[in-house]
Amino acid sequence: MAHITLDNDLPGISGLMAQRPDTGAPLNQLAETLLRSGDSPLTRGERELIAAYVSHLNSTPFCARSHSAFAAAQLEGGADVVGAVLADPEGAPVPALLKSLLRVAAEVQAHARPVSDETVRAARAEGATDAHLHDTVLIAAAFCMYNRYVSGLATDAPSEPAYYDVTADFIVRYGYGAAA
Amino acid sequence: MAHITLDNDLPGISGLMAQRPDTGAPLNQLAETLLRSGDSPLTRGERELIAAYVSHLNSTPFCARSHSAFAAAQLEGGADVVGAVLADPEGAPVPALLKSLLRVAAEVQAHARPVSDETVRAARAEGATDAHLHDTVLIAAAFCMYNRYVSGLATDAPSEPAYYDVTADFIVRYGYGAAA
Repeated sequence: MAHITLDNDLPGISGLMAQRPDTGAPLNQLAETLLRSGDSPLTRGERELIAAYVSHLNSTPFCARSHSAFAAAQLEGGADVVGAVLADPEGAPVPALLKSLLRVAAEVQAHARPVSDETVRAARAEGATDAHLHDTVLIAAAFCMYNRYVSGLATDAPSEPAYYDVTADFIVRYGYGAAA
Repeated sequence: MAHITLDNDLPGISGLMAQRPDTGAPLNQLAETLLRSGDSPLTRGERELIAAYVSHLNSTPFCARSHSAFAAAQLEGGADVVGAVLADPEGAPVPALLKSLLRVAAEVQAHARPVSDETVRAARAEGATDAHLHDTVLIAAAFCMYNRYVSGLATDAPSEPAYYDVTADFIVRYGYGAAA
């Protein structure tokens, strides 16, 4: 049961955003820009994968399952690749550049300190540009917020896989703005 | 030196927001709503104090010094009270309700797990409402993002205290929206 009373029965961040449209609007716009509409050298599937990976490291099931489903729907290899990345990013069948960015994301998840020079150098060696690094750091940082908001207030996460598949279909088609 | 090349010489998050107005806009709107314009049972000074405290726990000097200055400018007791809270929140001369919310914020800063039932109960016993808890959790969560963005990319933090005082004067007068 959530720590606060909601005026709706929506799970996870959806219930919080519906109850508080004042903060929900910029939170939604940030997700839409970062993960979908904004210019990025990362595909939508790759950006959702970074979001899912950070949410998994933060042990926030609602966000981890949601963004895993959104990544699977937009990434070549689908749910198998997403599951492999969450279980073992270094051994997963994804390009070396993406692996190097997942290492950047893991450092951002672990603490609010500068990403190490070695990790940045390794990503540069795989072809990471300033935009790859910027977007990876901000996606990872943003999910350290979304995860804490959703978990900190002890909101509910549906157990049925169908919930996440239906939401994925909606987000891929219409985006985060339409979900608000 | 920052991990990415900036097209301006603004420090901390200001340089990142100026370079990337696409993500800067929702980040700024979230700060404006959370810390200033949004309805909240917490005063602007109290909200800035929570932001400063979390940034201090995250060891992000740019955000800790900025939001300490913004809190000091809007809180009875000014910089002395802000300094006391950062050094020892339990012993600081602030109301018991605010102390109990600083404990909530510290748990959110530490990890993306539900705030403990004891900590929520203690805050309720001091008079915390759902809105106090919501706003405290979201401010603390948001600063786990802002701090990681600013520190993760290794941006610069000015050493001169005057920088933070001048910024505080601007933010108190015109708000985060005008800073964009």
